[in-house]
Formats: sequence, C-alpha cells, structure tokens
Amino acid sequence: MKIERLWGSRLKESPDEAFIEFISGRDVRERPPCDAVLVPYDIWGSRAHAVMLWKQGIVPTEDAQKIISGLHDVTSLYQQGAFPLDPAKEDVHTNIESFLIEKYGLGVGGKLHTARSRNDQVTLDMTLFLRDRNLDFCRHLIALETSLLAGATAYAAVLIPGYTHHQHAMVTTFGHILLSYAESFYRDLLRFRQWHSLFNANPLGGAASYGTSLPIDRELTSLLLGFEKPSVSSLDLITNRWEAEAELSHAISIMMNHLSGLAQTLILFTTTEFGFVTLSDKYCGGSSIMPQKRNPSGLEVIKAKTAVAHGVQSSLYALGKSLFVGYNRDSQWTKYLIMDLIHECEEAPHIMAAILDTLSIDRERAHDLCRTGFITATDLMEAIVNDYSLPLRQAKMLIERAVKYSEQKNTDTITWEGLKQALEEMGLALALTADSVINHQDPATVVSRRKAIGGPTSDVLLKAVDAVTARVREQSEWLQDKTARLDSAQARLDDLEKDLLSHKA
Amino acid sequence: MKIERLWGSRLKESPDEAFIEFISGRDVRERPPCDAVLVPYDIWGSRAHAVMLWKQGIVPTEDAQKIISGLHDVTSLYQQGAFPLDPAKEDVHTNIESFLIEKYGLGVGGKLHTARSRNDQVTLDMTLFLRDRNLDFCRHLIALETSLLAGATAYAAVLIPGYTHHQHAMVTTFGHILLSYAESFYRDLLRFRQWHSLFNANPLGGAASYGTSLPIDRELTSLLLGFEKPSVSSLDLITNRWEAEAELSHAISIMMNHLSGLAQTLILFTTTEFGFVTLSDKYCGGSSIMPQKRNPSGLEVIKAKTAVAHGVQSSLYALGKSLFVGYNRDSQWTKYLIMDLIHECEEAPHIMAAILDTLSIDRERAHDLCRTGFITATDLMEAIVNDYSLPLRQAKMLIERAVKYSEQKNTDTITWEGLKQALEEMGLALALTADSVINHQDPATVVSRRKAIGGPTSDVLLKAVDAVTARVREQSEWLQDKTARLDSAQARLDDLEKDLLSHKA
Amino acid sequence: MKIERLWGSRLKESPDEAFIEFISGRDVRERPPCDAVLVPYDIWGSRAHAVMLWKQGIVPTEDAQKIISGLHDVTSLYQQGAFPLDPAKEDVHTNIESFLIEKYGLGVGGKLHTARSRNDQVTLDMTLFLRDRNLDFCRHLIALETSLLAGATAYAAVLIPGYTHHQHAMVTTFGHILLSYAESFYRDLLRFRQWHSLFNANPLGGAASYGTSLPIDRELTSLLLGFEKPSVSSLDLITNRWEAEAELSHAISIMMNHLSGLAQTLILFTTTEFGFVTLSDKYCGGSSIMPQKRNPSGLEVIKAKTAVAHGVQSSLYALGKSLFVGYNRDSQWTKYLIMDLIHECEEAPHIMAAILDTLSIDRERAHDLCRTGFITATDLMEAIVNDYSLPLRQAKMLIERAVKYSEQKNTDTITWEGLKQALEEMGLALALTADSVINHQDPATVVSRRKAIGGPTSDVLLKAVDAVTARVREQSEWLQDKTARLDSAQARLDDLEKDLLSHKA
Amino acid sequence: MKIERLWGSRLKESPDEAFIEFISGRDVRERPPCDAVLVPYDIWGSRAHAVMLWKQGIVPTEDAQKIISGLHDVTSLYQQGAFPLDPAKEDVHTNIESFLIEKYGLGVGGKLHTARSRNDQVTLDMTLFLRDRNLDFCRHLIALETSLLAGATAYAAVLIPGYTHHQHAMVTTFGHILLSYAESFYRDLLRFRQWHSLFNANPLGGAASYGTSLPIDRELTSLLLGFEKPSVSSLDLITNRWEAEAELSHAISIMMNHLSGLAQTLILFTTTEFGFVTLSDKYCGGSSIMPQKRNPSGLEVIKAKTAVAHGVQSSLYALGKSLFVGYNRDSQWTKYLIMDLIHECEEAPHIMAAILDTLSIDRERAHDLCRTGFITATDLMEAIVNDYSLPLRQAKMLIERAVKYSEQKNTDTITWEGLKQALEEMGLALALTADSVINHQDPATVVSRRKAIGGPTSDVLLKAVDAVTARVREQSEWLQDKTARLDSAQARLDDLEKDLLSHKA
Repeated sequence: MKIERLWGSRLKESPDEAFIEFISGRDVRERPPCDAVLVPYDIWGSRAHAVMLWKQGIVPTEDAQKIISGLHDVTSLYQQGAFPLDPAKEDVHTNIESFLIEKYGLGVGGKLHTARSRNDQVTLDMTLFLRDRNLDFCRHLIALETSLLAGATAYAAVLIPGYTHHQHAMVTTFGHILLSYAESFYRDLLRFRQWHSLFNANPLGGAASYGTSLPIDRELTSLLLGFEKPSVSSLDLITNRWEAEAELSHAISIMMNHLSGLAQTLILFTTTEFGFVTLSDKYCGGSSIMPQKRNPSGLEVIKAKTAVAHGVQSSLYALGKSLFVGYNRDSQWTKYLIMDLIHECEEAPHIMAAILDTLSIDRERAHDLCRTGFITATDLMEAIVNDYSLPLRQAKMLIERAVKYSEQKNTDTITWEGLKQALEEMGLALALTADSVINHQDPATVVSRRKAIGGPTSDVLLKAVDAVTARVREQSEWLQDKTARLDSAQARLDDLEKDLLSHKA
Repeated sequence: MKIERLWGSRLKESPDEAFIEFISGRDVRERPPCDAVLVPYDIWGSRAHAVMLWKQGIVPTEDAQKIISGLHDVTSLYQQGAFPLDPAKEDVHTNIESFLIEKYGLGVGGKLHTARSRNDQVTLDMTLFLRDRNLDFCRHLIALETSLLAGATAYAAVLIPGYTHHQHAMVTTFGHILLSYAESFYRDLLRFRQWHSLFNANPLGGAASYGTSLPIDRELTSLLLGFEKPSVSSLDLITNRWEAEAELSHAISIMMNHLSGLAQTLILFTTTEFGFVTLSDKYCGGSSIMPQKRNPSGLEVIKAKTAVAHGVQSSLYALGKSLFVGYNRDSQWTKYLIMDLIHECEEAPHIMAAILDTLSIDRERAHDLCRTGFITATDLMEAIVNDYSLPLRQAKMLIERAVKYSEQKNTDTITWEGLKQALEEMGLALALTADSVINHQDPATVVSRRKAIGGPTSDVLLKAVDAVTARVREQSEWLQDKTARLDSAQARLDDLEKDLLSHKA
Repeated sequence: MKIERLWGSRLKESPDEAFIEFISGRDVRERPPCDAVLVPYDIWGSRAHAVMLWKQGIVPTEDAQKIISGLHDVTSLYQQGAFPLDPAKEDVHTNIESFLIEKYGLGVGGKLHTARSRNDQVTLDMTLFLRDRNLDFCRHLIALETSLLAGATAYAAVLIPGYTHHQHAMVTTFGHILLSYAESFYRDLLRFRQWHSLFNANPLGGAASYGTSLPIDRELTSLLLGFEKPSVSSLDLITNRWEAEAELSHAISIMMNHLSGLAQTLILFTTTEFGFVTLSDKYCGGSSIMPQKRNPSGLEVIKAKTAVAHGVQSSLYALGKSLFVGYNRDSQWTKYLIMDLIHECEEAPHIMAAILDTLSIDRERAHDLCRTGFITATDLMEAIVNDYSLPLRQAKMLIERAVKYSEQKNTDTITWEGLKQALEEMGLALALTADSVINHQDPATVVSRRKAIGGPTSDVLLKAVDAVTARVREQSEWLQDKTARLDSAQARLDDLEKDLLSHKA
Repeated sequence: MKIERLWGSRLKESPDEAFIEFISGRDVRERPPCDAVLVPYDIWGSRAHAVMLWKQGIVPTEDAQKIISGLHDVTSLYQQGAFPLDPAKEDVHTNIESFLIEKYGLGVGGKLHTARSRNDQVTLDMTLFLRDRNLDFCRHLIALETSLLAGATAYAAVLIPGYTHHQHAMVTTFGHILLSYAESFYRDLLRFRQWHSLFNANPLGGAASYGTSLPIDRELTSLLLGFEKPSVSSLDLITNRWEAEAELSHAISIMMNHLSGLAQTLILFTTTEFGFVTLSDKYCGGSSIMPQKRNPSGLEVIKAKTAVAHGVQSSLYALGKSLFVGYNRDSQWTKYLIMDLIHECEEAPHIMAAILDTLSIDRERAHDLCRTGFITATDLMEAIVNDYSLPLRQAKMLIERAVKYSEQKNTDTITWEGLKQALEEMGLALALTADSVINHQDPATVVSRRKAIGGPTSDVLLKAVDAVTARVREQSEWLQDKTARLDSAQARLDDLEKDLLSHKA
C-alpha cells in the first residue's frame, strides 16, 4: 500500500499543487546555492562589461570575441542544468571567470575583470535580480487586485456583520470588505513601483568603491543593462548594499501585513462559530490524527511568512547600521536574507487570490448574524438624529439605555419596549413606532442608507471599484512599459555583440 | 559655588544648546502627553467637520456658529498654554468636545460629533500631524544636503585614505566621501516625498469604519483640510492605522542608518589613531572623571537613535500583523511609537549638518596616511594594465607579490625592489623604472586619474555635485508647492467660517 | 452639564481605575524625566560609596559626615516632591553632586566623586532600579499564577471546545486552558529569576571602565548595596550596558507574548459568534459613536504593548551590536527604552488577573458548541481503535468518511448512518450501535476519558494544578528571601552611617 | 590554468578550511531540506513511543517488533545516505510512517501513530534537536572561554590604550580586555544552561493538543527520551511552539552581540591606523581587484550573522504574538528560522577562538599609543588627589586646564609647563616636579596602580582569570553530567527494545 498524505478522505477535492508547495515550506525541499539564481545576471553584466571594454579599446577584439563566446557557453550549460557552481570557487563570479580562464587561458579570461571589482559586480547582479523580482511582485499584486475587485463586485450586496474590536459594529457587505483590501494592496503596488524608481541605477564602474583609472564608459553599460543612468557616486551604492534590499523587504513586509490581516479575517469567518465563509477543499489542510479537519493552512502560513518578513527587515536594518564608509563584508548576508524572503513570499499574493476566487459564502448564516449583537444600534441612532434633529450625544445616551433595557429581556436587537423605557427615562417624546424600530434595524435597509464616498451602499461601492480598477490599469501600463525597456536593452546588447563577433580582429 | 556641568574646562567653546538638548535625551526632560501636539489638528478637523455639517443642513446655523466660536476659544486658550488636557477625559477629542458641551450645553456641543467617530477623528488628526512632520523631514534633509554639497565642493581636493573592510583600499578625497552621502540622503528625501503621495487622503467620513447614513460631504472636508481626495474606502485607513506610521518610520530608519554610517565614519576619523578630523568643541562632550576627554557624543547619540528607529519599525510591523478587519484598539499605541520616534530623530539631520559645517581636517595627517597600507597598489596595477596591456589577473598576481616582497622589507608602499623581484619571479619584462613606481603611487596623481562618472577626480566630482544640487532644487520646489497648498486650504476654511458667522440663523 | 467619558450608559458597572489608566496610555498623561525614578538609587549608591571612601581613609571623617547629611537632605526633599531635576544639570548624578557642592562647597562636595565615574554610577543606578523592577515582575506573575490556578480549579469541569488552527479540534474544559497558561507563565517567572542571578553583581568601582588607582573596597560597597559580589571585570558591565536591559526586555517580551495569546483567545471567546465568555463591565470600553459597544479594550491593549516589547528588544539588540570596547554614549538610550517598556508592561499581569477573576462563562452556550464542528470525531475514532484494535490509520480513514457522509446530511456530528456507510465502503464489520455512536460523542464522556498526564480529565487536571501550585510556592519563597537580603543590606548601611555620624572627626 | 580563488598571492599561509566555509555563506552551498536533520530524532521518538505502546498493551508484540525493526531499517538507510525525504510526502513524519506502511502494511505500520499527533511529534523532534544543539553551544562557549582565558594570561602585561567613546581613556592591557569578554561569554553559557532547564520536558502524549483517551504512559517515554518529566499540560508546549526557539535565539543573539563587539574591536585594532593587532593569514580574506588586501572577513561575517540573529528573534516573537490557543500552522516556520540561525552561528565561537589563538600583537606600536591622546591624564589626576588630598572636582579642573595648555604646545601628554600654568591659574601650590609628572604618566606604572578588584594590574587580573576558570569548570561538569544522562536514556531504550524483540508474540 502506498500513502502520500496522512489525511484527505474527508475532502472532496485534492489540494492544489502550488498550495501544497506553499504550505510545505522547507521540510522536504532544499534551498539551492544562492548564487545559482544569479548566473544569468552575472553573465548579462559580464557581456555588457566585455562589450564596453572592447568598444573602449581596453580589451582587443580577438580577446573580447572569445570572452563573449565563453559567456554564451556558460549560458548554454546553465540552461541545460550543466553549470553547477563549484563550492571550491567562492562564488558565481569566480566560477564564471574561472571557466573562461580554464578555457582560454589567463591571457584572455584574465582580462574580463579589468576595471571592475567583485564589489560592483555583486551589487550589479543583485540590482538586476531584484529589479526583476520587484517587477514580478507588481505583476502578482495586479493579479490579486483583479481577484479582489471581481470579489468586491460579486459580493457587493452580500450582507455580513462589520466589526470593530472584534465585536459587532455595523452591518456591511462582503464586497465592502474586499474593496477595502483592494485599496490597501494598491498602496503596496505603488511601493514596489517606488523601488524601481529609487534603485534602477547602474553601479557597474564603481570598482572597489573608489573608481578606476581605466577609460571605461559607464553610460554605455547603463544602456546595455536597462538602467536609467550610471550612479553618480562610485561609493554610495556599494556602502549601502543593504538599502535596496531593505526597501524591497519593507514593501514585502507591508504587503504581507495586509495579507496577514485578510488571512486572519478569513480564518475567523471560517470558524464553526462565525461559519459564513467556506474555503475550497483545494486550499485546506487536514490533520494527522483528527478525522474531521479542514484547516485554513494556507492562511496560517501567510501569517507565518509575515513574521519572517519582519525579521528580515530587522536584520537588514541592523546589518546596515553604523557601517564604516566603503564596502564591508557584512553586506554579503543581505543577499541570503532578501533571496529567502522573496522565495517565501512571492507566491503569497497568488495563493490569496486563489483562495478568494474559490471560497463560498453562506449568505443565510451571514444575514442571521446581521440581526445579533445590537449591530444596527448605530443606524437606529442616526435615523433618530436625522428625523428628530436630536443632538448626537443625546441620541447616543438614549440608544445606550435602549440597548441595556432590551438586553435585560434577552434579545440582542433593540426592542420597541426597550427604547420606550429609555425615552421615558430621558423625558423624550419622539413619534417612533414599533414598526419603525424594526425597519430602522433591517440589515439591507441600513446598508442602503450609508451613501457617502467610501461607504457600503452598492452604488457607492461599485463606483469605488471602478476608480480602483482604473488606477490599477495605469500601473499595469507602467509595468508593461518597464518590461519593454528591459527587452530593448537586451536587444541592443545582442546587436553590439553581433558587431563584435563579426569584426575582424 | 555653582556648577552645571562636571566637565568643560578643557574646551575652548561652549557646547551648542540644541546639541546639549539632543544628547541629554530624557534624563532630565519630561515627555508631555501625546495628545498635546494634536490639539491644533483636532481643532482643524472639527472646524472643517462643523462647517460641512452646516453646509449640509445637518447642524443648524446658530448651533454651528457656537461650535466654531467655541473651537476658536480652545485655540486661543491652547496658544496661551491654558488648555491643559484633563486626564479624567480620556483624550484630546473628549477634552475638546467636553469644553463645548460644558460651555454651550448638550443641545449644541453634543452635535459636533454627528456623523463621525473617534476612529476616523484620530486617524484624521494623526494624518494631519504626520503630514506636517513628514514635510519637516523633507525640509531638514534639504538643509543637510546643502551642507554635504558645500562640503563636497570645499573638500573636493583634500586627499584621504579610502577604505573597504576598514582597511586601506584606494586614495580618495573627503569631498568624494561627502558626495556619496549626499546621494544616499537624496533617496531619503524621495522616500519622505513618497509618504506624502501615499497618505495625503482624507479619512474623515469613514465614521466607525463602515460609513454613516447622514448626508455628509467628504469632498468638501477634503478641500478644507488640504487633502487630494477622500479615501475611497471607509474601512481601509482605519484598519490600517499603523501603515502610515510604519511608512514614515521606515523612511526615518533608512535615513538614520545613513546618518549612523556617516557618524561611525566620523567617529573613526576623529580617533587619536586616524586623527585627521577634529570636531568643533561646540559638538563635543566631556567626561565626569577623565580630564582630557573630547567625546563625539552627538555622533554616538545618532547611532543610539538609529537603534531606536529600528525598534519602532519592528513594533509597528508587529502591531499591524494579522489584525482582524475593522478598528482594533491595538492601533492606539502606534501614536506613541511614531511620536516618540519623530521626537528622537527630527533634529538628527540638523545636528549632523552642524557637525559637518564646523569640523576641521588635518590635511597633512590625512596625506601621510595616503602613503601607508599599500593603498596605491591598485592604481599601480591599473597603470601597468593600461601601459602594458597585461591581463588584469596577471597584473594582480604581480602586484600581490610585489606587496609581499616590499612588506618583508618593512615598507608599506610598493618598492621598486619588491616589484622587480615579483617581475622576475613571474618572468615578466616590463619597461618600468624606480621613478615610475613612485609616480604611479603618488596620492594626488592616482586620484586625478580616476575619471569615470562617480569617481573622485575633482572635475568629475564637481559635476556630480552640480547634478545632485539640481535634483535637490527640484525637491525644494515640490516642497514649497505642497506647503502652499496647505496654506490655501486653511484660507478656504477661514472664508467659509466667515460666511457661517455672518449668516443670520 | 459635565461629561467625562463619551460612552457608558450601557454598562452596569464603572470601569476600574487601574484599567482606565492602563488603556488610556499616554494620550493625556505625561512621562516624567527618566532620571526622576533613579534619585533613590543614586542616593543609595552615593551613600555606600561615601561610607566606603571614609572607611578607606580616602575622604576624612568630617567631609564624609557632611556628604552623608547632604544626601539625607536630598532624600527628604525628594520624598516631599521638592527635589525637581534641573534640566540645566545634565542628569540625576550632576543634580545631586551639585546640591552637595552648592551646600558644602567644592572642598567637601567635590570629594564624593573620587574614584568613580558616571559610567559606573549610572550602571549601578540602573542595576539597582532594574533589580527592584525585576523582583516586582516576579511578584506580579505570582499573583497572576494564583488567579489562573484558582480559575483552573473553578472551571475544571466546564466544557468548552478545544481548537487547533482556529477550528474545532477536541472538547476540553476552560480549566484545562487556564492551567496551560499557568504553565507558560511559570516559565516566565523562572526567566525573571534568572535575570536576578545573572546581573546581581556590583559594577561600582569600575570607574571610567578601566579601574582606579585609589584604594577602594569593592567588597564593602557590594555588601552595602545588596550584591552577591563585585564584578570581576571593571570593563565588562560598562561595555555591555544594554545586556541586562535586553535580558529583562526578553523576559518581558515572552511574558507579553503569553499574555497576548491569552488575550486573543479571550477576545474570540467574547465575540457574538463564540459568545461563551463575558467580561465584566469593569474591564470593558465603549465607543464614541456606537451605543451597543462593550469592547475588550484591555485585551487589545495587551496585544499592542506586546508589539512595543518586541520593538524595544530589537532596539536593544541593535544598539548593543558591534560596539567597540569600553563605554559608548549609545548606551544612554538603553535607559529610556527599558524604562518605557517597564512602564508599559508592569501592570499587564495584574490587569489580566483582574479580567480573569471577574469574567463569566455561559456554560450552556459552550456546551452547545461542543456538539458542533465534528469536534468529537477523534474521540469516536480512538474508542473504535481501543475497542476493536483497529490500526489508527484505518480507523482515521473510516471516520473521515463518516464525517463526509454525515456532513452531506447537514449534521455536524457523526451520525450512525454516516458511520454505517463508511463501514460498508471499507468492508469493516464492527459491533457498533447507534447508541454507542452517540455515547462516544458525548462531550462530558469524551473529556473524562483523556486521563494521561497533561489531559483535561478533572482528576488529572487538579493534580496538575497542585503540582504548579507547589512550584509557584517555591518561587514565592525565593522572592521573599531575596527581598529580605536587600532589606538587610540597607540596615547594614544605616548602621555604618550611624558609626560615621557619631565619630569624632 | 586552474584558479580557485582570485586572491591570495600576497598571503603566506592558506586560509583555514572551516574559515572559508564560514565566510562563504550560502553563495555556492545549498541548504538541505530541514527535516533531514530530524530523521534521527523522529526515529528516537518513534522507538520510544512504540515500546511504550507495546508495554501498555495498545499495540501487540508482533506488530511492535516489526515497527521497531522497520525503524532500525530507516536508521541504517539514513546513515548510508539512502533515506532521501520524498517531497511528495509532506514531512519527515510522513516519510517514515509511509516506509513502515509500505513495508509492513497498514495493519502494522498504521498502528505507530496511535495516541499521538504530528503536533506533539514535531514538538518532540524539535525539542530533541534543539536540546542537542543547545548543549553544543555550551561546548563551543567553553572552548572559547579557554582561548580567552589563555589570552588574558598571556597578554596580562601587554599595554594597550583603553578607550571610551572610541577615544583614548586610560591605559590598560590586552589581557584586561580579553578577560572582560571572558566574563561576558560566561553569562552566555549560563543562558544556554537555562534553556536546558526550561525546556527539557516531554511533550509527547499531548496528541493534537488535548490529550488522548488511550492508556499511554508518559513517564515511560520521558525516561526513554532523557527528559526530566512529562509536560504537565498537553496544550502549553504545542501552543507555544515558538518559545523554546525564541529562547535559544535570544541566547544566540546576545552571544553574537558579544562576538560582534569583540569583532569590531579587533577590526579597529587591525586597521593601518591603530595597527597593533595582526590577524593570521589563515583568517584573512583578499580582494578580487586590490592586490594589497588582508581583510578581516571572518570578523565582518560575525557582525553580519549577528544581524541575522536579531532578525530571527524578531520573527519568532512576531510569530508567537497573539496566537489563539491550540496548535496553529504558523508555528511550522519556527523550525526553519531556528535551524537557519543555528547553522549560521554554531561555528562563530570556534572561528573567534581560532582568530584569537593566532593573532599577533605589535607591542611597540601599542606602547607608543599609550603615550598619546592624554591617555594618562586621569592617572595623574588621581595621583594628585591621593598625594595632596585635593577634592576630585578641583583636581579634575586643574588637569583639564593642564591638558588645554599642553595641547597648545602641540604635545599630547601633559607637560610640566602646562600643569604649572594650570596650578598658577587656580592658585594651587603643590609640591610636584617635572619628574613626577612624567612618572605619573608612565604607561606601565599607571596600570600597576589600578589594583581594585576588576582592574588591570597583573595580580588582580590573574586572580580574575582564576575565578572565571573555576566557574567555567563547573559548567563543564554540568555539561558532562547532562550528556551522560542522555546516553543512559538511550541505553535504557536499547534494553527495552531487546526485551521486546526477544519476546514471544
């Protein structure tokens, strides 16, 4: 007999693959060497550097041709999974340079490192890597926004309790809740965009931190690597090789906080006690012992990873504190910190979107809860303020008493009797009736009255959905533009390489 | 006999007042109640809310007139220091509302709170407060940039050792160092600007989190409070009353990290051992026991406050994690955290600017150090690469040997003898001379050769200064524009109040 | 009309004073200068130091007598609130020394600081202060343990759902939950005790960090200040003036985490949806707008303060990282960090104890929930394993199916029909009956069967209560012993002072 | 040509292997699946559980025999590297249980999980794993103490400057510095010991969190797993599956802070500017471009890892905050956090010990520095206080002036002329001579006078070394005792298994 999971006969659908990967973490999965993901970026950087050295006459044509060929060989090997990083050679840079030297000798391979240092090289590699991952986060968030905005529309009229302090506050709709998260994640999108505008500058050419006397052309390498411009200081980005990491980690941390809040909210909504949201079997976990379990494991894991993000932020700040000017080896650890964090969190928006897309709501249960916990007391109070011009403070005292007296009769909506007793006690004579008291507490009615911008009434909510949708579309266009620019930088490099390779030495 | 400080006879100048306040911390200074600084913001918000309630017919003219008058009374009292917050009345909101109720009765004062909750009120107050402080940070950073750019210019040709790993790397100039920090702080400036664009939205009207049924006009209050627009969700900004705080705290944390790095760098430069920077007596502390002390206390305190910033960031993240939807009381503590942090750090850029403006450099000592620790080895290597087309890797091995052999003779620059021995060992015949070896290691010469963008050569450096200066000027204009917009919002509110007060009830 | 709070007519009891202080935070309350709380400790330290200087012949009798008298004067003034700290005099140390110099002249007052530095003085003051606060935390935790153990006993048989992943897991008792927290807080108690054993060493005599050439007697001052011994290195405790703070902050952080978990648990239990715990009105907050609110504000505030603790820990770690040997001014900020944290958290265990002592449980509601969410499925499975020797894995598959089939019939306990269908499908023939299926899922029955150490059965639980009670008693005795030792150190100092004052000069 | 490292021709010795591994981090090294290290612990736990189930009659002899044999098979495979964890099977627990079920069928293998859950199983595995690692840290710290105490002895009379605020304070010895760190690390040792006493309790038997109805014997499994006792609550340790991790991470964080401080101190001592410490080539790194470099990479990496530790602590705290009672999936991530941290830091004490054991000191350079920066001013002042009974405050003013006047003559020790001018200015007539001024500032003399406990005088220092040595020895004995207890628990399990296997079914 073969078993793979110790639970599941209760569930009607098998868990989603990506979901299982997300919640399994690193129990049975290894983390590859960090530099493995840098190979393509290190090569991109070296190709641009080599072409520039050639254009500047620092490396002669024939040598440059060999170096470029060698780098293409590494790319091929890498793509076939046949360029393992040799632990005897410190890092990705040494592995690649050694390959060239072993293949073409020191006289050729030994020229690639002219006018650069590992300090600017690793800063470059990380900038290229992070730039791509950062754009990925933008992409994932746009997808999550799409789910949330679709949900906000679909559930625009689905009544549920609104809470403050975990207590019943005022009736709202599930769509209103989802729109509020769409708004939060929109700010996250802007944070990732800000990352791009802060850090899309070319560190290559800073050399060890203090520049080089060789006649390099930093404008050219900027162009070939898709950067806006070369950094204006050779020193700044190398001393601060923790800041782009800390900036990204901050954007991730806030995004994860938003996800964790939505996760916690859904976790409570899916308890037996709240009971008005059910997750799809595809996004539930079971127990090794308890046969009845359908655990919201994905949502819990999101919370765990949020804590991971916070810690990475702490580490990056602490690492970057009180650093003496110039490169410090301390910075090397920023690589592992940010790579791990990206690995942990990059799928989180996707998992959340999938959970949202597949959950179901028990509208009846939700509606029943909208008649408990005196949740419509504020609406009744506002109706009285509106109809009888009662000062708010007086109206509030009135309804507080009405709640107390109604509660004494074991109800948890305000009764006409309770309100009458309060009116009498406060010496107020208002033309209210038993019917109006009931009507002013009808869940659908009260929601339909809250019409100011930002409120839950369907019309207002759908206008908000439109507004956020339009803004997300703008970001989507920005993202496409940036992606296209990177593609054209690559094309320009390809062209220059063709020139070089076709050149007679 | 009267003494105030237990040290100081050694110093020629008295410490700066602001500096003493900065380094004394909270030993002998109290922190006032946090809501004290919110009084003007709470009043601004209440005035805008009251005028709007009147315009919308929710509060009748006569009542609105009294409320506005009462709020102006509070302002006057506050400005005279005669509006202490009564601890028996929970917070600033209750204190002010109680004042109105006590003065005009529940029938008038009890109407101000119509269609709002403390939830949106405190969110509003904090947004207004943080918006001002955030613009202040922009202002302080622009001033610091001015100091750094002036320093970069003044010290553009002052040679000092450049370091990596705390070890001698390559000769640079003090101006080159300062320009690199100017570049770092420029990103900080952009971070504070980003805060403004993310959070300048009006939360007022969200009420308890779920809107109100009363016919409020959120566009109007936005206009009167200097906001771009009302928030599109009543819920989002209230649930996330930690995010604007965490965003600001992040901007502060990174800025403090940059300051701490510059502080640590200056601390080392002022040790007896490095000894080429001397701080002004005005920015030094003494010891209670050691008569000789001139301590860089301000720089150390900057490092301490950097650690404080990191912790506040941790707290705000942790506080905002996994929050159930809707307001949670937890958020109240975000107020104290961010207020304390602002208090600790707002003067830091100013103190740093003052320290930079008043320090002096021992150029001779600095120049001497530029001839030790084999600091010009890389320049010599690059000269050989350039002159003899030697592969970089080979040239590096050559110079490594030359260093080793020179060191064995107890020098710490490369000697012609050491180099010769290395050339022979490697079988290289290059037309080098004893003179050229000396010349290639001359500190001024080597710096003058590093001409690529970002490097320390004076021309290049001064162009970089110009570039950053131009960018700072743009930010300065942005700042003026934003400040003007807030002024005109206030003017618009004054006008509407005049209308109201002149209106016949 | 006079109002103090904008809510409350709903509540039957007024909020507790200490509770209001706890949840109001710093809105309307100032934080006094930090050194104010150090006055008594600074005086204790100076008295011991002065007596020692006299015994060693470093300060002559007549001068020592005056110094002691002056210090007693300061104590009197302080106790009458008439020794305000003058901000012109840096800190508590300078304030007190200046008092002596102003009163007795430099020739007398100027001798007290002989053979000490502010470095060892402030380390001493903080050690004395923290030692007291640390013992207070022990005291508060013992009181909380008492509440929890009383609750565990009182609610030993009160059935409630037990949860994992926020989902129904297995029925347990409220007493079982409370006992588990008693066990957690017991470890906290041991952490605070560990603090005492790590840091009860005398730093006085380290002087600036490197000792003094004057013939001081550190054994004597240790005795007079209640320390086990003088520190064996003059340097260690001064360089590490963040470690005792970080240790205490860690103990507080873990304690707060435990409190925050208990708080979150109670918050959920008091929602309308769970609804089986009701907090006393004395420990509830209201809303400024919503009339029905009874918010668990104290519990939320505990969570907020937990986040504050985490941040302080981050700050203390970051501040203490990579410090160059010897005193650094950075350390000054550790004072504010730990003092604020103590201020925020010292009442937290007390507030939690009060909340526990006064809450009430709706046993019927809790019992009803123990029949939902298939919460007894595991017990039924174990009964089958036990009665029919079925392999656990097979039994689990059986019950998973039974859950699925029962759920399809819209029940949320396992039905005999559902189980039969599962038995048939798996080809199992077990002598079960409809009655036994019901009986094996009876909430009281299932709890009574879980008898292993650690389980919820009353007998077992009450034995656990006894075991923890006995351990808490031991800690209580330790606490009394330590308190007595401090008292006798003070008495010894009083005696020596009497000798001195009665001595002829 | 083959190259492995891009630097090194300058160095006389090759870097140490362990050192290279330590500083290379994860660039070219993978991190294996986390559960891989848990295999032996999971098996130990399962063996103990199976034997107990058999003794209690829950699993029949024949089945128990097979289960035990199967577990031994897994051990053999694991030891041969032939038990890879299958990612299709969630975790180590499922992998091992599946092995048994595949080998012996569900009827046998399916019985092992009786009366336990993955919740208590993973808590158990982690407790066993962390218990071992924690004892390892004790072992490593004892080794580091040995190095430090040897160094304190060897360098007891080697004069170096003592610093406060990074400025020259008072002359001390290198031995005095090392002893101070020995004292700091001793507290670390006690922290790890405390971990053992807090967490050496058996969680097995808690099952899902709420116990089991099957008749298990938790005393027996405690005995077989080397625990003091079973946990007194089935729930506490499972809800708090972050606390043992956070406790260990705290101990590591403080230890790393101490290491980072020592690292930073050595980094400065090895700069060209301080220049009195030289690290062995075996513990230096080079540069990819700068030929002269001998970087203190190991010391920098220690600082980086310190920042990593702080972040892990933040994560663990945040993860453990506000957790609802009972197991939450969030806890799974505590495993990765603490495992990564252990991996990063376990070698740090060893690397530091090796660096200390192999460094060399330039005594002449150090001694020269002891005559600069007015470093002996305090000693001169104390000599005057002692010889002339001058009040300390007056003597300090005198010497402050003497420093000022001497400095004006460009010296940086106090001259007789400078002192005379100060004496005259203050109207003091003391019988000082030019000779005595010189003598009172002799570096060796001043150190020999600071004789109080904790001071740098050789006799005093060596006594301190003895005291710490004796205490370390006690901890060493404790460690041996604990290790022996674990061995005997294993032996007891072996014996019971022999009984079982020899038993007739």
